[in-house]
Amino acid sequence: MRQVAILGIGQIKVDEHWDLSLRELGGNAAFAAMQDAGMDKVDALFVGNMLSPLVSGQNQLGAFFSDWIGLWDQEAVKVEAACGSGAAALRSGLMAVASGDLDSALVVGVEKMTDKAGHDVTAALATAADADYEVEQGISFVGINALVMRRYMYEYGWKHEDFAPFSINSHANAMNNPYARLHEKISVEKFEKSSMVATPINLLDASPTGDGAAAAILVPAERVMSLPGKPRITIAGSASATDSIAVHSRKDPLFLNAAYLSSRKAYEMANVGPADIDVFELHDAFSIMSALSLEACGFAERGQGVRLGLDDEIGLNGRVPVCTRGGLKARGHPVGATGMYQIVEVVQQLRGECDKTQVDGAKVGMAQNIGGSGATILTHILTTN
Amino acid sequence: MRQVAILGIGQIKVDEHWDLSLRELGGNAAFAAMQDAGMDKVDALFVGNMLSPLVSGQNQLGAFFSDWIGLWDQEAVKVEAACGSGAAALRSGLMAVASGDLDSALVVGVEKMTDKAGHDVTAALATAADADYEVEQGISFVGINALVMRRYMYEYGWKHEDFAPFSINSHANAMNNPYARLHEKISVEKFEKSSMVATPINLLDASPTGDGAAAAILVPAERVMSLPGKPRITIAGSASATDSIAVHSRKDPLFLNAAYLSSRKAYEMANVGPADIDVFELHDAFSIMSALSLEACGFAERGQGVRLGLDDEIGLNGRVPVCTRGGLKARGHPVGATGMYQIVEVVQQLRGECDKTQVDGAKVGMAQNIGGSGATILTHILTTN
Repeated sequence: MRQVAILGIGQIKVDEHWDLSLRELGGNAAFAAMQDAGMDKVDALFVGNMLSPLVSGQNQLGAFFSDWIGLWDQEAVKVEAACGSGAAALRSGLMAVASGDLDSALVVGVEKMTDKAGHDVTAALATAADADYEVEQGISFVGINALVMRRYMYEYGWKHEDFAPFSINSHANAMNNPYARLHEKISVEKFEKSSMVATPINLLDASPTGDGAAAAILVPAERVMSLPGKPRITIAGSASATDSIAVHSRKDPLFLNAAYLSSRKAYEMANVGPADIDVFELHDAFSIMSALSLEACGFAERGQGVRLGLDDEIGLNGRVPVCTRGGLKARGHPVGATGMYQIVEVVQQLRGECDKTQVDGAKVGMAQNIGGSGATILTHILTTN
Repeated sequence: MRQVAILGIGQIKVDEHWDLSLRELGGNAAFAAMQDAGMDKVDALFVGNMLSPLVSGQNQLGAFFSDWIGLWDQEAVKVEAACGSGAAALRSGLMAVASGDLDSALVVGVEKMTDKAGHDVTAALATAADADYEVEQGISFVGINALVMRRYMYEYGWKHEDFAPFSINSHANAMNNPYARLHEKISVEKFEKSSMVATPINLLDASPTGDGAAAAILVPAERVMSLPGKPRITIAGSASATDSIAVHSRKDPLFLNAAYLSSRKAYEMANVGPADIDVFELHDAFSIMSALSLEACGFAERGQGVRLGLDDEIGLNGRVPVCTRGGLKARGHPVGATGMYQIVEVVQQLRGECDKTQVDGAKVGMAQNIGGSGATILTHILTTN
């Protein structure tokens, strides 16, 4: 397959956008990416989205957005893998350009969540879990994650406050990101006093949802080589893997096997290892997921992911800087858009555009996007030179 | 891009499957395709589906099915383009194998529709239209198609009974297809006396929905070459194009521009033209769509698609045999699965497995799958030698 580069990126602030329709949310991110790339036409559009049928009564987002943004006639399709939809759309666009069939692709992750009441959104998010064997029992999505976190604390002897550094790090980094939903520094004390959602997950363990959209333009890498002055950001590694959709069916509910598999494939494809990763945008939908993701990707031993936070190895000068633009926890988690925010943020790091949260000399960045409670996990590695 | 072949196919009868869950529907078609291909593992799963979030409360069908059918660990994703979801999933699988990143892919189109009451399904199907500018006005999906059909009759002077041959042909062909939902021969008289749905579309202009699933296994074409006795079915052409999602926004609501564009790209890629097509599985969701599809794909002049039915050019011995296994009209239209039924049926024709509806010596077959009222249209051309 031929090498593919990211030529342009775009995003909008994660927020409650009462004044922007679903069309405008995705459209604004798409326009920003096309402007950044200096292109007014692309061969195809790949949209990552999870909830539009349930929240907006709208399917067929491919044609929906290609119409709105003026890509008439062009190929367009929607890709869905729950909260992993954004990276899944990226991978679909990547395959099409890598195959040689298309010479450019626009990938947009978009989610409109705030048009529905909270309990409706909770019900819609539960469609990421197993409807027959999990949701039917009445458990919510956060409830499933709470069971995992509780078991992890029991097995490895961690206290709740040991997870605080993940949230504190994300909130601190988001202070410098104008596109982040939350701009509020937090402390261990505040973390511990936060309202309980589903024991042991409290409000500061959990990422806020929101309306959002992020986009990128893919082109053959050789094309970027001929554009003087454009940063050369290559998709060096891309892989997707799955696990059983219901957590109770897994051999080990405390190991993200799909993260392990997709990261290993991505490392191999990019010819790098964990030690080479300068920045890691991980999927901190809940603080427990940060720990599990770091362990599965080879940054920590089993049960020791929490240690990386406590030892400040996840900070901007640490061994593996994570959530450098605020992560899901503070940038916000507009579910089907999140994977593309992660990609945009890694590109910003590799371009050196991150101001106070810039990781010095970042050359290799990784993004990991998770659908469901670890059922679909996609890992992408971007490099620059 | 490297050439890709279809090594195995599978399908289940379109019906009201009260005894089969969503899992079992898709799983049974997947197992049949894997058995047909003689494979028990594939690199990835691509699922085409439109309604599962709305009808079954289930998203993330990639991981959902890879779990159920024992493809643990493997990549899996869902692709959605309304009623064009099946072919959209096929094209995603095709790109991944053509790129060289994957060496095999299972594509499953699946839809569970009968678990909800009719009015709920009608509302769910309306998500294929423009929620803000069509559905908000209270029009249903069949209502939109009725407006198009009425205008076509007015512009070109056709009577309602002139559309009868399309439905009669599909019903006659379905008599020989055990997987078809309807096994009932119809006549012009019966067609004219059928209950009105949305003037001028009556029950026999419209395809029946249902539960269904159809699947195919994709591998590099070179691999099939080394398997003696296996029919060599190659995906010679594949293209997707879009039009505005709302019919009222189109320059000409009576021309399927996305069918025109995707068929021309597919012809070019396969190096064939309309005259070379031995069998054409078109998307007869409504009888008017048969006429429009034939015109856009170069088989008839503007406004003259109906003529092909009246002159019996669409029959098994006609110039362009269509809906040889019953089409959407009589095989049934489980929306997100339909595109894969069409592919399976073209493969059956090229393999010579169609018994009484076999088109003699069929070597080049085309399938066209339509999302919405022509907003997303995918055309695939399969060849054998």
